[in-house]
Amino acid sequence: MTATPAPRVTIKEVAARAGVSKGAVSLAFNQKPGLSEATRDRIFRAARELGWAPSPTARTLAGSRVDVVGLAICRPARLLGLEPFYMEFVSGVESVLTEHSCSLLLRLVRSLEEEVGLQESWWRGRQIGGSILVDFRADDPRVATVERLGMPVVAVGHPSLTGSLTSVWTEDATAVTEAVRYLAALGHRRIARVGGAAALGHTSMRTAAFDEAARALELAGAWQVATDYSGEAGARATRSLLTAAAPDRPTAIVYDNDIMAVAGLAVAAEMGLSVPDDVSLLAWDDSQLCRITHPPLSAMSHDVHGFGAEAARTLFGVITGDGPGSHPVPTPVLTPRGSTAPPKV
Amino acid sequence: MTATPAPRVTIKEVAARAGVSKGAVSLAFNQKPGLSEATRDRIFRAARELGWAPSPTARTLAGSRVDVVGLAICRPARLLGLEPFYMEFVSGVESVLTEHSCSLLLRLVRSLEEEVGLQESWWRGRQIGGSILVDFRADDPRVATVERLGMPVVAVGHPSLTGSLTSVWTEDATAVTEAVRYLAALGHRRIARVGGAAALGHTSMRTAAFDEAARALELAGAWQVATDYSGEAGARATRSLLTAAAPDRPTAIVYDNDIMAVAGLAVAAEMGLSVPDDVSLLAWDDSQLCRITHPPLSAMSHDVHGFGAEAARTLFGVITGDGPGSHPVPTPVLTPRGSTAPPKV
Repeated sequence: MTATPAPRVTIKEVAARAGVSKGAVSLAFNQKPGLSEATRDRIFRAARELGWAPSPTARTLAGSRVDVVGLAICRPARLLGLEPFYMEFVSGVESVLTEHSCSLLLRLVRSLEEEVGLQESWWRGRQIGGSILVDFRADDPRVATVERLGMPVVAVGHPSLTGSLTSVWTEDATAVTEAVRYLAALGHRRIARVGGAAALGHTSMRTAAFDEAARALELAGAWQVATDYSGEAGARATRSLLTAAAPDRPTAIVYDNDIMAVAGLAVAAEMGLSVPDDVSLLAWDDSQLCRITHPPLSAMSHDVHGFGAEAARTLFGVITGDGPGSHPVPTPVLTPRGSTAPPKV
Repeated sequence: MTATPAPRVTIKEVAARAGVSKGAVSLAFNQKPGLSEATRDRIFRAARELGWAPSPTARTLAGSRVDVVGLAICRPARLLGLEPFYMEFVSGVESVLTEHSCSLLLRLVRSLEEEVGLQESWWRGRQIGGSILVDFRADDPRVATVERLGMPVVAVGHPSLTGSLTSVWTEDATAVTEAVRYLAALGHRRIARVGGAAALGHTSMRTAAFDEAARALELAGAWQVATDYSGEAGARATRSLLTAAAPDRPTAIVYDNDIMAVAGLAVAAEMGLSVPDDVSLLAWDDSQLCRITHPPLSAMSHDVHGFGAEAARTLFGVITGDGPGSHPVPTPVLTPRGSTAPPKV
């Protein structure tokens, strides 16, 4: 391994040797467009020959890097790879960061307490210009820390959970209510929901909204099951719901993501039940998975990629001070496909 | 936004005020375990009161950060969110980084040339202690740059593509050959492969191995289609292969990932073809998707999470100088499930 020498040489000398302006050297090292390959190569060669490297804090705003944005996710590593949501969200974040020649500093943490310390360390260590905070819980410990540090963040969560932080969110309660009303309008009187992790703030909101809608519509049966969002857990929950005797069995199931709905569809097939004749299934998030099953899955469609992009855009607004402030992203909308229909019985 | 003051105060003063050792302050700011919540809080409070922050280059080895590892991916942002492979790979990388209190600096790039500049800039800017390089092509421009910089990397790719770099790889040719031999042993004489992006080095190797196996087994028909790895592309390729008249139609299809195989299964259902009676389907990678379809998909199983973890472990070995060096990870193995059987005709 080669040590990079300390930057004693100045950027001016590098520019002179490469025969370009200081601005061009800066463009090259900050990965900005506008230079030819040849010029860029000449600049890197000159820098190498002189042993020059940009100061680690060169691209900073008020002392912190603006070309790196932090994201800590509190999930087991294994689960992160299984659920399409986070990768789509991250891909949306990256689509905006790329426009700004910005990188994402990604870290898995085991607890929100660990994340609190990490964010403080990233910020104080000048490793990031701001952070995207996700998966808010009631009384979330990150709110006070971020307020105290004056660190630029965007909170991805409902304002009832995110204190004074600038936030973006989906109206989960509205979407759950629409899902239940749609199934009830088809004639379903026994409806189940296979939900996500119970500790998450937005899960609680969906649970409360489902209860409320079931009461308002005077459903004959309403069931809710908490899972870890994995396909296996979705399959287990579906099998357990559908093995009950007919009157105690839901005729429609709504899922908190799409991979659990795909798993539910396979369980119905395995049990010899026809979808949607014997049971209607309604997915959430609506990644491409929902369109490639047979029948294709009806879903509460949510542009998760766009959600990630909007979170990143809002964070840049917070950093530069001219952002849109807190606002919801579009509420998931019902996209009926082949997996929902009036009950046969 | 609050500016973080320059570090004039020393770590010794922070330690004294918090009533701890300098080592404890270092542990707190580097997110290492071993401190109680109360001690950690006291240290952060003392640092805040004194206006102290760790130097951005505090945790460095030979001048570069060792708590950050780089990963640039050359894919459109949208596609990144669709394919399970990268999220599983990243989750495996993160599982090892977490053990080392290390973060991942992630960036999407539009070309390998952009990545070359980015890696140089990250390394010279002391933002990373090393990088994980993926998606190697023939005559990959990253090899020479990394050799010149003496930058620690692990190359995820076959040694024939990665020059003198320390690399980890899967024996793709061996696995493709096994897949074709298995289908031929079931009695299939007309076999197709729905492959990944043609420009990637490992895709070329799989393509050559498939041709070779088809020749050696004297198959009556062998087809290969290049795609972009998306479910939509997999569905299109499957539809096109299966709409040919019977003698010009494959009776078995092997896919380069799993989401394309799931899409292929839906296309067969849509066309009224039974799997495996009318056509056998064999997936690759084998994420949980393959186990939640009906029938479950036979697959060339590859522990992608473990592959990511091994890449990260190998990189730490390169950084510390006592790693295992270049080595393959376990070759994907055949996992027969319900989607493959002898042809009916």
